[in-house]
Amino acid sequence: MTVRVEFDRLCVVLVATRNPLNIGAAARAMSNFGFLRLRVVNPYDAAFREARSAVGASAVLAGADEFKSVAEAVDDCTLVVGTTAVGTRELQHPVRRLEDGARLIRKTLGSSRVALLFGSERVGLANADLSHCHWLMRIPAREEHRSVNLGQAVAICLYELARDSKAGRAAKKKKLATASELERLGAMLLDALRSSGYLRAHGTLLADEKLRRLIRRLNLSPSDAEVLLGLLRQIVWKLHASQNSKE
Amino acid sequence: MTVRVEFDRLCVVLVATRNPLNIGAAARAMSNFGFLRLRVVNPYDAAFREARSAVGASAVLAGADEFKSVAEAVDDCTLVVGTTAVGTRELQHPVRRLEDGARLIRKTLGSSRVALLFGSERVGLANADLSHCHWLMRIPAREEHRSVNLGQAVAICLYELARDSKAGRAAKKKKLATASELERLGAMLLDALRSSGYLRAHGTLLADEKLRRLIRRLNLSPSDAEVLLGLLRQIVWKLHASQNSKE
Repeated sequence: MTVRVEFDRLCVVLVATRNPLNIGAAARAMSNFGFLRLRVVNPYDAAFREARSAVGASAVLAGADEFKSVAEAVDDCTLVVGTTAVGTRELQHPVRRLEDGARLIRKTLGSSRVALLFGSERVGLANADLSHCHWLMRIPAREEHRSVNLGQAVAICLYELARDSKAGRAAKKKKLATASELERLGAMLLDALRSSGYLRAHGTLLADEKLRRLIRRLNLSPSDAEVLLGLLRQIVWKLHASQNSKE
Repeated sequence: MTVRVEFDRLCVVLVATRNPLNIGAAARAMSNFGFLRLRVVNPYDAAFREARSAVGASAVLAGADEFKSVAEAVDDCTLVVGTTAVGTRELQHPVRRLEDGARLIRKTLGSSRVALLFGSERVGLANADLSHCHWLMRIPAREEHRSVNLGQAVAICLYELARDSKAGRAAKKKKLATASELERLGAMLLDALRSSGYLRAHGTLLADEKLRRLIRRLNLSPSDAEVLLGLLRQIVWKLHASQNSKE
């Protein structure tokens, strides 16, 4: 996955962020998931300067644009989405769960620019900021502890936006050892069990079947089967050798 | 959404974490998504104390358990999953994308305890830590910037685990042996390999880790683990007996 052209249409907008660590964390998550357009609105000046000058500050931070108002920051965007923990405030906007909201945002990104707003650490987005939003999106956290840390909220939202449920489908099937490899392994194990005295001669047939089933339950790969065969061979050799030395 | 009983079976295990802010961030995300069991393995002492005594330190932090080793921290868990950015290291484990891995974890949580391991900020999980894992999970980030910040990685993983618990409901999961049962099995096998001359003394550590991974790939049920332990015990007894008779 490199940066997708539609991801370049998303603007992450941090409004009145106070803590430079959070600006840095947001920028890092953006880089992780391939959203590179950061816009900041009235950050605490020192916070923004500090984040920008931090060692290893990313390309995302270096390329960030600064705005004096939310209106200017979202000026070229077709869809403006605010994030919220939906606390005690009465909200006038439709609120969508992240998963549903992300689906809508992805659709819009196919053709036009979207702004995703994150408010300040203490109070979130102010009503004036919310008035620029078409709708709001919330991360489905526990009622008892809804407020997600800013850097983590950005990371979770971008993960959900980048998540492509199709990509994971083609799960590779594990390659398994062949029946003949398993038979050899079973025979060797049986030999070890006889030589060690684990099996009495009369119980052999039953044990044989039980062992065969057990070995098949292991779902061994060819290489694991080979390793096990090798170590059993050595154990059997040793058991035989000590028997012979006594005779 | 309050805390679900199956979420209580997940243990988030932070291994050798350095930065108290990251321990605090992990605990906060846990509280957000309703996973309350935090275990820490050898955190930098000051980091853990500082995180714990921070103003507003959560119930999660206050209730965290501290361990000296990964083995102890995952002792009662049936499934142990490591997180990785899959960097330059060659990995011996199957690696699943977060979405697919989370589905498997949710299934297992329906009946038994799961440990989810996060390594240190600088180097992630060491090979010795990874050897305790059944498989690994990675957050699908951009190839150019794969390494996700620790606190954000915990938040994203827990969000994905909490996201849709319905998906995992149906399929009944095979009951698996616990980590301590597998450890006993591994120790017995190692004894057999030493006694039979398969291992030279100098190869022990490497073999130890390889064997641990191999045993975890078998997905043993408790009863199969017990059968294998029993037959190995007999083999080891025989190998020792013949050694002693020669002396």
